[in-house]
Amino acid sequence: MTAPVRITGARITPVAFVDPPLLNTVGVHQPYALRAIIQLDTDGGLVGLGETYADTAHLTRLEAAAEAIVGLDVFALGSMRAAIEATLDTLSVTGGDGVAGMITTASTTDRVFSPFEVACLDVQGKATGRPVSDLLGGAVRDAVPFSAYLFYKWAGHPGAEADSWGEALDPEGLVRQARKMIAEYGFGAIKVKGGVFPPDEEIAGIKALRAAFPDLPLRLDPNAAWTVDTSIRVASELNGIVEYLEDPTPGLDGMAEVAREAKMPLATNMCVVAFDHLEPAVRKNSVGVVLSDHHYWGGLQRSRLLAGICDTFGFGLSMHSNSHLGISLAAMVHLAAATPNLTYACDTHWPWKSEDVIEPGAIGFVDGAVPVPTSPGLGVEIDEDALAALHQQYLDCGIRDRDDTGYMKSIDATFENTSPRW
Amino acid sequence: MTAPVRITGARITPVAFVDPPLLNTVGVHQPYALRAIIQLDTDGGLVGLGETYADTAHLTRLEAAAEAIVGLDVFALGSMRAAIEATLDTLSVTGGDGVAGMITTASTTDRVFSPFEVACLDVQGKATGRPVSDLLGGAVRDAVPFSAYLFYKWAGHPGAEADSWGEALDPEGLVRQARKMIAEYGFGAIKVKGGVFPPDEEIAGIKALRAAFPDLPLRLDPNAAWTVDTSIRVASELNGIVEYLEDPTPGLDGMAEVAREAKMPLATNMCVVAFDHLEPAVRKNSVGVVLSDHHYWGGLQRSRLLAGICDTFGFGLSMHSNSHLGISLAAMVHLAAATPNLTYACDTHWPWKSEDVIEPGAIGFVDGAVPVPTSPGLGVEIDEDALAALHQQYLDCGIRDRDDTGYMKSIDATFENTSPRW
Ligand SMILES: [Mg+2]
Ligand SMILES: [Mg+2]
Repeated sequence: MTAPVRITGARITPVAFVDPPLLNTVGVHQPYALRAIIQLDTDGGLVGLGETYADTAHLTRLEAAAEAIVGLDVFALGSMRAAIEATLDTLSVTGGDGVAGMITTASTTDRVFSPFEVACLDVQGKATGRPVSDLLGGAVRDAVPFSAYLFYKWAGHPGAEADSWGEALDPEGLVRQARKMIAEYGFGAIKVKGGVFPPDEEIAGIKALRAAFPDLPLRLDPNAAWTVDTSIRVASELNGIVEYLEDPTPGLDGMAEVAREAKMPLATNMCVVAFDHLEPAVRKNSVGVVLSDHHYWGGLQRSRLLAGICDTFGFGLSMHSNSHLGISLAAMVHLAAATPNLTYACDTHWPWKSEDVIEPGAIGFVDGAVPVPTSPGLGVEIDEDALAALHQQYLDCGIRDRDDTGYMKSIDATFENTSPRW
Repeated sequence: MTAPVRITGARITPVAFVDPPLLNTVGVHQPYALRAIIQLDTDGGLVGLGETYADTAHLTRLEAAAEAIVGLDVFALGSMRAAIEATLDTLSVTGGDGVAGMITTASTTDRVFSPFEVACLDVQGKATGRPVSDLLGGAVRDAVPFSAYLFYKWAGHPGAEADSWGEALDPEGLVRQARKMIAEYGFGAIKVKGGVFPPDEEIAGIKALRAAFPDLPLRLDPNAAWTVDTSIRVASELNGIVEYLEDPTPGLDGMAEVAREAKMPLATNMCVVAFDHLEPAVRKNSVGVVLSDHHYWGGLQRSRLLAGICDTFGFGLSMHSNSHLGISLAAMVHLAAATPNLTYACDTHWPWKSEDVIEPGAIGFVDGAVPVPTSPGLGVEIDEDALAALHQQYLDCGIRDRDDTGYMKSIDATFENTSPRW
């Protein structure tokens, strides 16, 4: 009796945007980061937006999924996920996690479903005149706080000029980077991507940040670069200094060993990245904080489920980020605004990018937080010229799969991607 | 930028409807069952419907909650629950669980919030032109199967004439009742409310039903009337006969002991009735199936959270019922339709009542299932004359708190409400 809003197709556009040489334990960010932009078309003319990874295998899956959901109502999210799951079962592509091998055990279905779910919620919001946060239970805060996400980095990509951020390879460099980022964005918390240098150097970096910013919560994330023993030692050194220690060591069992000794909570976006991991994480007491990420947790509604599970089982909740553009920021902000127990400042790579596919002005940072858009849907719109330009950049740049390790090896032939390393 | 739909008030009307003398382990249903009907008024004129318990203390809490949410947008469910929680903290009423002491540890906040959440979703649906199931992720089935909910019962209330169902105090009576109910409604599963007679008599009842209905799934629910040893013995006797055994014994620890020995899953709506109970239930391996009930799990969105938790942690999911009217049936049906992992037939007391507050024809049973309403909101509307009549019946009947035990004692002075009894 109510009129459905049926999907007629999806335009999936891979884009590339300039990315600085940000170092991590598996290598270094390539000169361009990739994303896929989804424009979901419906019979009434409303268009929904989604954003996801753009690795080759992922693009193949996205195209198959887009075909599988034609004809479905944008409110039929349960049926849509089932249709995508069934289609993916028929494909034989492998790989394509989109995050350089750092999140290898997430659900392929949830990763592929996610941008379509976001796009459907965008259409739902536009069709009903409500912001996406309202479709998730309503915003409980007007603005979502984010953290300053610091990276060790070179001054510029090899052979290129230094970027505006300059070099950060030691404690002084980290503090300088933090000062610049906080001056520009007003962040009230700091996260450091570690796993790059031997632990003592990174401990010194955190202590330098503590001295420079005595009141800001700090976090360190070495992406499982350390053994259990090293993790326990670092946890002891950073006791009272970091609010949580993120993925010090690989796996639920190793994390559980560290958690038994560490005084601060352990956080993760590596050993708990799918619903299947939650029961063992509870039983093993592996972690204290889960970082959600709608890009691989199956969209915004399933990320709300994750949030409810964290609330129910006594996990803290934070939010993970990869390099992303404005559609993802909007989605992250609507989700975070509607999630009462998301009490940590969220991660974002936002300051590291200078380009976008959305019309400027719709979303941005004020005092370290993003005001929640109040217009219907996500509240952001595509700038078609910008989209075309970043798609051309994708075609021209030659990068087709994120490969931090391969890029690092092309610069330093001795580099080995090992975990744990120290 | 989008126009809110603000709550201007709520009309809370207690009603009473005729209820047969259904026996359970705490006593017997009184001649009238009580419910409270919520009519949530909004500034645009849309009215949302909710239905809940009507015990005195609960009514007091509902009135306070209704006052606390005036001015809120019907989409602001997160803020609304927080406002209700804050208001309830200021009240000093006790009791009022609405279910005769059988579900004592549910969340007061979730029980009070629930009918307002349902009413808000009804308004959301009416405002957006979508059925409530669409606001919960979309229906994944067109009709929701229910079970035939059998009760041991007297022919009629003491001093009154026999009702149309007649007596059921032995296996033959149960089979007769099942035949009549299945003939009228087409149910494809059978649930028996036990805990009334010594276990061997109820085992005989289940075996008689198995003989009479060889293909229908069967369940038995003695409401924790048995010791651990008795439960293990009954489980052994009913192995291969019931699809699950519901609350054989009290508490998470007792249930875990039984679960270790029983071949079939144990189900519960007594030891896991709030989010706080889920972590210990997981750690103790107490149950295999959780019965959801939006009336005390905090409404439809939080019942979806429960469903997601069951899916994540490997619990089966079924649905509990108390005596209810058409608004609750509609809410149950929208929720169940949008819950992919709700694979058991739901419980309902529907066949036991002959009156209602909703306009007839909007919702009902076809082949043991309820077709999901497709009109905006819940899809049911108040019949104001019927509401007034059942409210008058409430005023006249004198019952103000459900008290199965007190009513039974007024008939049989030797009755004692003990658990476990056998
Ligand atoms: Mg991380
Ligand atoms: Mg029960």
